[in-house]
Amino acid sequence: MSNVNWIDSEEEEDFTEISPLLVQKRDQFISPTIIESLDYDRCPNEPYMNFISTKTKQIISYLNLKDWIMFSLIGVATGLVAFAIDMGVTFLSKLKFDNTYKYVKRYNSLLTVPMTIYIGVSLLYCLIASAFVAFTPEAAGSGIPEIKCYLNGIRLPKVVRIKTLVCKAFGVMFSVAGGLPCGKEGPMIHSGAALGAGIPEGLSRLVKRMGFTESFFGVHDDRSKRDFISAGAAAGVSAAFGAPLGGVLFSLEEGSSFWNQALTWKTLFCSMCSAFVLQILKSAIETKTAGIGNKYSGLINFGEFKCADGSNECMLWGPQDLIVFILMGAVGGLLGAMFNQLNLYITKYRINHVNMKGRVVRMMEVALIGIVISSLAYVSINTAGHCVRWNKNGTEKELQNLMRTWHCPEKKHLYNDYGTLAFNSQENTIKMLFHHFNYSDLNSTNNESTDLPLQATYHPLSLVIFLVLLFLTACWTYGIGVPSGLFVPCLLIGATYGRIFAFCYQQIFKTTNPSLFYPGTYALIGAAAFLGGVVRMTISLTVILIETTRNISYGLPIMLTLMVAKWVGDLFNKGLYDIHIELKHWPLLEWEAEPLWETIRAKDLMKSNLEWLNPRPTVGRVVEILKRTKHSAFPVCMYTDSQQGGGTLRRNAAKLGITVNDRSQLRLLGLILRSQIVTLLKKEQYFDLDGPELEGLTHNQLTEFYPKYPDIDDITLTIADQNKIIDCKKYMNPCPYTVSPLAPITKVFTLFRSLGLRHLIVVNNMGEVEGIITRSELQEHHIERVYRDKVEKDNTIAGSTTDLRAQPGLGGKIQRLEGVSPSEFLQIPQPTRTLRTF
Amino acid sequence: MSNVNWIDSEEEEDFTEISPLLVQKRDQFISPTIIESLDYDRCPNEPYMNFISTKTKQIISYLNLKDWIMFSLIGVATGLVAFAIDMGVTFLSKLKFDNTYKYVKRYNSLLTVPMTIYIGVSLLYCLIASAFVAFTPEAAGSGIPEIKCYLNGIRLPKVVRIKTLVCKAFGVMFSVAGGLPCGKEGPMIHSGAALGAGIPEGLSRLVKRMGFTESFFGVHDDRSKRDFISAGAAAGVSAAFGAPLGGVLFSLEEGSSFWNQALTWKTLFCSMCSAFVLQILKSAIETKTAGIGNKYSGLINFGEFKCADGSNECMLWGPQDLIVFILMGAVGGLLGAMFNQLNLYITKYRINHVNMKGRVVRMMEVALIGIVISSLAYVSINTAGHCVRWNKNGTEKELQNLMRTWHCPEKKHLYNDYGTLAFNSQENTIKMLFHHFNYSDLNSTNNESTDLPLQATYHPLSLVIFLVLLFLTACWTYGIGVPSGLFVPCLLIGATYGRIFAFCYQQIFKTTNPSLFYPGTYALIGAAAFLGGVVRMTISLTVILIETTRNISYGLPIMLTLMVAKWVGDLFNKGLYDIHIELKHWPLLEWEAEPLWETIRAKDLMKSNLEWLNPRPTVGRVVEILKRTKHSAFPVCMYTDSQQGGGTLRRNAAKLGITVNDRSQLRLLGLILRSQIVTLLKKEQYFDLDGPELEGLTHNQLTEFYPKYPDIDDITLTIADQNKIIDCKKYMNPCPYTVSPLAPITKVFTLFRSLGLRHLIVVNNMGEVEGIITRSELQEHHIERVYRDKVEKDNTIAGSTTDLRAQPGLGGKIQRLEGVSPSEFLQIPQPTRTLRTF
Repeated sequence: MSNVNWIDSEEEEDFTEISPLLVQKRDQFISPTIIESLDYDRCPNEPYMNFISTKTKQIISYLNLKDWIMFSLIGVATGLVAFAIDMGVTFLSKLKFDNTYKYVKRYNSLLTVPMTIYIGVSLLYCLIASAFVAFTPEAAGSGIPEIKCYLNGIRLPKVVRIKTLVCKAFGVMFSVAGGLPCGKEGPMIHSGAALGAGIPEGLSRLVKRMGFTESFFGVHDDRSKRDFISAGAAAGVSAAFGAPLGGVLFSLEEGSSFWNQALTWKTLFCSMCSAFVLQILKSAIETKTAGIGNKYSGLINFGEFKCADGSNECMLWGPQDLIVFILMGAVGGLLGAMFNQLNLYITKYRINHVNMKGRVVRMMEVALIGIVISSLAYVSINTAGHCVRWNKNGTEKELQNLMRTWHCPEKKHLYNDYGTLAFNSQENTIKMLFHHFNYSDLNSTNNESTDLPLQATYHPLSLVIFLVLLFLTACWTYGIGVPSGLFVPCLLIGATYGRIFAFCYQQIFKTTNPSLFYPGTYALIGAAAFLGGVVRMTISLTVILIETTRNISYGLPIMLTLMVAKWVGDLFNKGLYDIHIELKHWPLLEWEAEPLWETIRAKDLMKSNLEWLNPRPTVGRVVEILKRTKHSAFPVCMYTDSQQGGGTLRRNAAKLGITVNDRSQLRLLGLILRSQIVTLLKKEQYFDLDGPELEGLTHNQLTEFYPKYPDIDDITLTIADQNKIIDCKKYMNPCPYTVSPLAPITKVFTLFRSLGLRHLIVVNNMGEVEGIITRSELQEHHIERVYRDKVEKDNTIAGSTTDLRAQPGLGGKIQRLEGVSPSEFLQIPQPTRTLRTF
Repeated sequence: MSNVNWIDSEEEEDFTEISPLLVQKRDQFISPTIIESLDYDRCPNEPYMNFISTKTKQIISYLNLKDWIMFSLIGVATGLVAFAIDMGVTFLSKLKFDNTYKYVKRYNSLLTVPMTIYIGVSLLYCLIASAFVAFTPEAAGSGIPEIKCYLNGIRLPKVVRIKTLVCKAFGVMFSVAGGLPCGKEGPMIHSGAALGAGIPEGLSRLVKRMGFTESFFGVHDDRSKRDFISAGAAAGVSAAFGAPLGGVLFSLEEGSSFWNQALTWKTLFCSMCSAFVLQILKSAIETKTAGIGNKYSGLINFGEFKCADGSNECMLWGPQDLIVFILMGAVGGLLGAMFNQLNLYITKYRINHVNMKGRVVRMMEVALIGIVISSLAYVSINTAGHCVRWNKNGTEKELQNLMRTWHCPEKKHLYNDYGTLAFNSQENTIKMLFHHFNYSDLNSTNNESTDLPLQATYHPLSLVIFLVLLFLTACWTYGIGVPSGLFVPCLLIGATYGRIFAFCYQQIFKTTNPSLFYPGTYALIGAAAFLGGVVRMTISLTVILIETTRNISYGLPIMLTLMVAKWVGDLFNKGLYDIHIELKHWPLLEWEAEPLWETIRAKDLMKSNLEWLNPRPTVGRVVEILKRTKHSAFPVCMYTDSQQGGGTLRRNAAKLGITVNDRSQLRLLGLILRSQIVTLLKKEQYFDLDGPELEGLTHNQLTEFYPKYPDIDDITLTIADQNKIIDCKKYMNPCPYTVSPLAPITKVFTLFRSLGLRHLIVVNNMGEVEGIITRSELQEHHIERVYRDKVEKDNTIAGSTTDLRAQPGLGGKIQRLEGVSPSEFLQIPQPTRTLRTF
């Protein structure tokens, strides 16, 4: 994130909020609009406290039960969607492969007819997929960057809509079946998240429409929405990989701020429901019974790692292999970094030269890549493929149907190795690379002996060509205008690399004893290494891979490999998801600051120019501020002149909110959100000072417009309203999180991440507002600049570290209006009514 | 925790800290001493900031590497210890069983000889185990309550010492081999935690002794110690159950405050190392090769759940069974609650009548229970055991060696069912209940037909007798003076219950088709239900059981069962670990407050009487306060009279720390720990106001005494020192976490749990200290009382909820010294030197 200036904080004025960030127009994935932060904090204002004080034990139990039902519904729905996607892909692929293969057999030597059919069908599929994206640009890509951002606390518009879900689900069926090197796993996770957002809201609307009160039913804050989306994403992972634990850890790793035991437990339940539904449906189709056997069926199934001779006693790997795995991880990290760098260049080019030119050009790019990929595959099979002897007894039953003889004489028990790799679904190819060792021979067309190296199942040249082509096309594909996941292509590339590695290893060490050398392990580790090198995920990826291989004894090897791959990759660039997040200028919040920056304090980071409101400002003033700024929240403050000590404040500016640059006398009372003020205005919650006070809004009325609050420009006010008063203090958050100006950056990060904050107010030990920290202040490039400034300053001012006294902001950056007394700001007539001291 | 008044807050004066809690003397598990809270917060004082500002990139990398090495060492050591315990138990058990069984065979009808041997050996083992506990009382029990408290943030003395580890490890070998119904898993987790504490400290001392600087090496704060202990506990779970993920989630569920990605990743690595070492060693012993096959070997191994006919296609359970599982969960919850209640009565009795009488009586109790259990087992085998026909082909090879014919005629292929259950290790019995269905017949002694119900492997009467005896003896055993885990006995009881349930189910529904009815599933669910009903753990237990069964398709059933068991059990009492924690009066901090209490605010909870210090108090005053109170931290404050507004404070009391009851003018500057002050005194860091200032301590010097800081009574001071000044402001934490008096209790809990706090200072919007919240204020019984008071008050005062103004404390409880002006407190001569305004 270091090189991107997504917001130029030197020039901009408004920093109360990350907000008002216009995404550059040339990026058409997300149409230009406002990106806001999510707020995980609760606002315990008066209406909220009244609201919760009505909660009896019964209502609490009901709410709890409602939550459980909601989480299970999300899980079930995600399982169903994942199943539908899987069935769709299987059906479409079967249609394509079977028809083509039929013609391959019929026109044995004539290549053009099946080739035309193959390419034509692939092209058609690709075009359909891209049409979905043209219709809903948010459905493009894997969706993981979007979900990552959402869980991180960025409200991306339209990402979790039902329309996006539908387009993504149908789109990915066609893009995967179209032969593009992309997976359906990312889109499934995205679908789960969309269901997590959609189901509670949909049910809430339904209940409302049916005439029931929905006071305890709806989702009226970012907090519960984010919880549901976390659970949905977890359920998506669970369905895609059959990894419920991996799903929960994915949600935790990517997003969850605070390890909340109850929420984690519910998320796990949601994941389990999703995995269960999928398993029931899959086993119903496979075995025609609605029972759960001990055969495991997640969507991705790598098959069981077992010994070549079928026994349970062989050695899959030994302790000495750990060193080999570390080496493989390093190479995987390098390859991954290469992949990311190449994709970065391609994507930058694409943003500037393809996406700019509109939807049709984007669709044309998809068509082009579809044609290129299917042609390449087709040509390579016929030119690069080797005929390899097939040892039927040494091959698992499940894999036997996947063998492609192509033009190799079937009678001689030969198969085309490249055809077998390229003319199957990616999942099946991975399974073959993991488990297919047929004890045949490199030159088996001539040679009849069988005790030959294991790895000769695929000719190394075929593997290398397959690897290179797949690497390049996958790199080209990620980012085009179709829904496309990244996991499966990366696993496939990695598994191919692993088999090549195993071949080399075997050639060097001349290991031929199959009970001491198991190529499947190297394929698995290769897959982990490359995937880790590309996405740089840690905990959740380890768990997902362990759950997918169903073999916990691969835990340490997978973990070591991923670790090394990440370390090596991080030397060169970021993970691919992060690269794409940067390209889209989404302000991701990292887990923690660099340890090097630990000496930075809150006062160095904060923005010290801020807008504030009085506890009871006039409508006119408030509207003026709301229209002028884009801030999403305003500290509610009082000016003091402290004639009396200890507890009493004299109000000077009772009516207005003004911008002051000298914040040293602003006592913090609370924080009010833009959404709250707008709701108050819309609901006409303002009053004359002389007139009777209003009854006030309830908590439900206050959050009624969630998530789309009216725009300030849509609110019409009469001239007479202008001088009426809004009661901010009743609706504000009276206890926003605050931090001392002296708090080190680690503390700020901990607070932000672990509490899911949107605003953190910097308050000194006099209770005075010194500044505010939001997501934008915690962006890497901003901290980096602050750190540079600080180091420079430290070098010039000696002994500055011993001065613990709060320095008001960042020295040179504060624009104090010297010589302007507070009263000069306050030329608006003060209300005469005595407000209760607050 | 509701009925225990472990601290009587009405009468006590000192509430700055949970601290000075004298555990009742009659409880000899933990000898009476001070229990303190752990502090997970960092103190970014001047020495610390200087310390970290010297960190270069190289040092950061070195520290990171050091951490990784440390975590892997802890994992490896835990694996080794677990392996040693396992070997020890196996060896000792084999010695006992083999010798007895030899005599059973020899004196076929004469029971006394083998019986004497059996009881004698068991008695000897039990006595040895109890001798270890007599030597180190902390080694008693499972250790999980202790670890739970430690991870929760309570520093229990001597719990993670090496001596405790050694006694626990050796003790548990003998108690398990002695035939007591206890497991070795809890003690393994305890051992892991002890290694987590011991290894970094031991290495640190070693490096120091070798003459190296250990500035960057040692563990000098609670934070890193707690991290290492978390990892150690995770490694212990990982080793005990072969469940690395379960281990990580155990640590997170029980303790970790804040989901820290980097720490979780390191903990997972530690767990993986532990599992790996164990697996290597076990497979080296079993297969004589140092390789990892696909045969999985954690310490507990429930075996693979597969179909009776050996195929992979049968049905282990169907969707309709989910209802059955819920029912089983409810019954399990009931049984668990019964178990807990019974154990509660027994333990209370034991505390009052056994433990009080000293070590010898405790040992005698162990001897008694050892004799009773082994006699019961022996007698039951010979009286209650049924001879059952053994279908050798239907039995897995692994289980065949476990069959006990006892006095049943071996030639007729009969075995004694009770003997098979009781005369094996508990793990093996569980394995048999899960997997042993021999298609034989109830009355197989007479009947030769073989297509008879599955469940007749064990006569239902034998199962019921086994269940009842085991239930009672396990209940009696938990809490006696030996190291004894709870997991395995509970699983065994539950599995027996599950098989009885399966028998009834089969009798009712007449299901005989083995491919539709799989008794092993019911045994597993029964085991989960009972264990869940006893311990009431959720996430980690689910994951542990899934990992142990190696079958993720049991995920949903296990989770549902545990959930229902917990809900049902919670209607009656708490989990057994929590019951024992309550009995020991350890102040556990719950995850969150009851939702009913959401209206309680920080000001209702806090303690408003507190001791504070000036930024530069005199030595005499400080010593007086330290000796008078037991507080572990003191707010550093200033008195204001606010003649000037905005930013300037006039110091009235520059020299002393005094107790004020009117806190309304105390401006919070920071927080200083008792340990810091004591270190300053010990290192003679005080100075004359006229003399030169001191150079000051470095961060390493300041934390040098960790974890055992000198007692204030051990510090000798001259009269001349009394008037010297201590510079608190240099060493205090300048930015302690604070909270608004208006913050609701949920916010306070979130802060405490997610940040691992020890002190949370309540500060109003004037920057004035209103009170302090520590662990003791967040205890259930305290909140309950506050809630009751509040409800009463709300009922008398109408409209009080609309008054958002900070009320100073809890109305009636504040002892304001009316009419006493601040200056009356300040009769000690003020220093004349001008201190910098701070």
